[in-house]
Amino acid sequence: MLKFENLSLNIPDTTKPRVVIIGGGFGGINLAKHLNNKDFQIVMFDKQNYHGFWPLLYQVATAGLEPDSIAEPLRKLFDEDYKDFHFRLVRVTGVNPQAKTVVTLIGELKYDHLIIATGTKANFFGNEQVQKYSFPLKTIPEALNLRSQLLQSFEQASITKDPDIRQALLNFVIVGAGPTGVELAGSLAEMRKHVLPGDYPGLDFSKMNIYLVEGLDRVLPPMAPESSKKTHEYLTEMGINIKLNTLVEAYDGEVVTLKGGEQIRSHTVVWAAGVTGALIDGLPKEVVARGGRVLVNRFNQVEGFPDIYAIGDIAMMKTDKYPNGHPGVAQPAIQQGRLLAKNLNRALRGEKMEEFEYFDKGSLAIIGRSRAVADLPGNRHLSGFFAWIIWLVVHIYYLIGFRSKLIVLTNWMYRLFTYERGTRLIIRPFVRPGDKQAQEFMLKNEMG
Amino acid sequence: MLKFENLSLNIPDTTKPRVVIIGGGFGGINLAKHLNNKDFQIVMFDKQNYHGFWPLLYQVATAGLEPDSIAEPLRKLFDEDYKDFHFRLVRVTGVNPQAKTVVTLIGELKYDHLIIATGTKANFFGNEQVQKYSFPLKTIPEALNLRSQLLQSFEQASITKDPDIRQALLNFVIVGAGPTGVELAGSLAEMRKHVLPGDYPGLDFSKMNIYLVEGLDRVLPPMAPESSKKTHEYLTEMGINIKLNTLVEAYDGEVVTLKGGEQIRSHTVVWAAGVTGALIDGLPKEVVARGGRVLVNRFNQVEGFPDIYAIGDIAMMKTDKYPNGHPGVAQPAIQQGRLLAKNLNRALRGEKMEEFEYFDKGSLAIIGRSRAVADLPGNRHLSGFFAWIIWLVVHIYYLIGFRSKLIVLTNWMYRLFTYERGTRLIIRPFVRPGDKQAQEFMLKNEMG
Repeated sequence: MLKFENLSLNIPDTTKPRVVIIGGGFGGINLAKHLNNKDFQIVMFDKQNYHGFWPLLYQVATAGLEPDSIAEPLRKLFDEDYKDFHFRLVRVTGVNPQAKTVVTLIGELKYDHLIIATGTKANFFGNEQVQKYSFPLKTIPEALNLRSQLLQSFEQASITKDPDIRQALLNFVIVGAGPTGVELAGSLAEMRKHVLPGDYPGLDFSKMNIYLVEGLDRVLPPMAPESSKKTHEYLTEMGINIKLNTLVEAYDGEVVTLKGGEQIRSHTVVWAAGVTGALIDGLPKEVVARGGRVLVNRFNQVEGFPDIYAIGDIAMMKTDKYPNGHPGVAQPAIQQGRLLAKNLNRALRGEKMEEFEYFDKGSLAIIGRSRAVADLPGNRHLSGFFAWIIWLVVHIYYLIGFRSKLIVLTNWMYRLFTYERGTRLIIRPFVRPGDKQAQEFMLKNEMG
Repeated sequence: MLKFENLSLNIPDTTKPRVVIIGGGFGGINLAKHLNNKDFQIVMFDKQNYHGFWPLLYQVATAGLEPDSIAEPLRKLFDEDYKDFHFRLVRVTGVNPQAKTVVTLIGELKYDHLIIATGTKANFFGNEQVQKYSFPLKTIPEALNLRSQLLQSFEQASITKDPDIRQALLNFVIVGAGPTGVELAGSLAEMRKHVLPGDYPGLDFSKMNIYLVEGLDRVLPPMAPESSKKTHEYLTEMGINIKLNTLVEAYDGEVVTLKGGEQIRSHTVVWAAGVTGALIDGLPKEVVARGGRVLVNRFNQVEGFPDIYAIGDIAMMKTDKYPNGHPGVAQPAIQQGRLLAKNLNRALRGEKMEEFEYFDKGSLAIIGRSRAVADLPGNRHLSGFFAWIIWLVVHIYYLIGFRSKLIVLTNWMYRLFTYERGTRLIIRPFVRPGDKQAQEFMLKNEMG
């Protein structure tokens, strides 16, 4: 049995400067990959043992891809070639800037350079009821929960006598029309058209409704208005019910109440409405900006703490071009991770550090087959088949590791020709917390 | 929320004879595929929504394959082409032969022909302590639990101060040297050699021990003595500690006690020592044979119940060539399912049913790369590279569905060249029931 008192971080002592990286996301791994491996000891902490390609997480939720297609073990990414690299599967709970230590569940560790690359977590804006009953989509277990819930909804709809409950099972509400919400809605609409009627011949899929609820006045608010407009058209063509300027007020697990009073009965509400920085304890309030982000200068240094850095989604770097910080996507994290590695290498040699300048490669979103939008550098916008091809190429290219790319490619090629989705497995049935009858049902069914 | 009183089986009424199949394993799906689709209404019950290729389950446990490579959704296998086919994800609890109904959690259903194809489940021979603490390997969730446990063992060994606990984490005990036990042991030995030292540079893998414990006097007892001998050689070459004529007496989660008194400290004990039929209630004792199997005649009819059939692992058909029943592998189930479909088609046309005769295509087991054994028809035996190639070809061929085959092929081809295993993801951390500290550890780590 596990005993806390027998655990310790077990990081070897070193005379080299120790770089401690909290988080194995895009920022963390790009930093570690580009640090001069001979000059630093690198310690990475994460509470997952893998790096995930989160832009494709919605595919795991809709049974398009298996987790291993979008994730790579961190220990595999940093193998024998990284001589003084140490990964520990443990959560960092805080930082002590005076003592220059990070605090974990199983002990403290001295650092010379500390990099906070913890990213973001779902933001429910304090609504505990919504948090309890809705499905976030930020991690692989959450995506698998949502997948089980989607498939179980159709199974349950097949054996329900009550038409109101059947309708509630067939109503899917996605809150937030950012990239995750839009891509999930599109993916569900494709399933409704091509996959589900064959799987569930007893169900009437004209009664399956997909609602996409957005608080702002357009879908894909981070993208250009042209792309939002085209995306709105695509979503409408695909039969998705869009509700703009609409906020969710309450959800009790049965009924969603929108601001203004409208109600939708639904057993599946996906929460893709907002994120907040995954902060760690020990930093003073002055360095925490709006949205739980850490204020950094152009070298990603936390204001007032020259040996603590924040990169990626958790960092708030205000520049002339980006007065409200950089967009919360992979590219700023990747670029900041790389530059910080370069700067730490330089500083060690006594050279001057370089200021960060974001190079915007553009943004992409996929809505369905042959339906995508692209904001390209130079204020150009693309949509339709060619945007879709660009989306495919870019996503395959960025998936880390040869193996993942090959499998994703195989799956996609197959699906391109067949419209099929292979991974409709309820690996672990999901039971809503507190739903005793569902629990009893699963138990009696010997499921999971 | 789920409410039992609102659920019903919702199977349409029919004037055709209704065939009810319990279980979507090899027997069940081959029966359903070959029944004359226009003449029968087919109802299939299973408590999983997928058909699994269980001979490769150990690959899921050792992070070689993802679940979707070895499983296909039952609703996908029986799509639009199967007009009057109805799948229900619900457990059958019993049969009422007098009323000719099957009893499920959510209602009863009349049958004209009932086929019991429920297979087997792990047999702990009444040892509740072993059942509580050891890892069975019969289902995908169990394989994923074991995968998490294996990977978590190395992570925990990396942060353990106590050398005794570290050793217990690095001792793996597999009970039962049938195909599952042998293939799992071989797979673990390959990981120890090719994958783990790179992933865990801080651990000394010369201290990782793999024990294979077998109650009989040779490994792979269902195969020919020649193959057992060769397999024993291979396992020994690969550094696996084989203990024959050895029974497990107790396991408290920390220490395995063998009959005779020897003790092994281990946190991971895999139970692959035996199976028993997954019986359903309502059949008289007289038709239940040794090992919880249902006695059937040469038409797979249950003795005394001409409209109830049992096929596959759950069936006990005694023939001159197989006086103790057929081997518990896929082939008898496949062949019995196909013949029973043919016989039901024939009986409907007033034709005579055909007696079952098992056609033994041979048996295969893989121990490691280029190390496999084959018992071929005609009492021929093969081992080494050619047996390994045969094993590869046969397993790829039998994997159901084009997509699975392609992905398995891709993964394997890649691994053939690189020795790599890509899916080392702890998707859901496993916590041993009752281990409060481990639970607290996971919770505080925000894992899972």
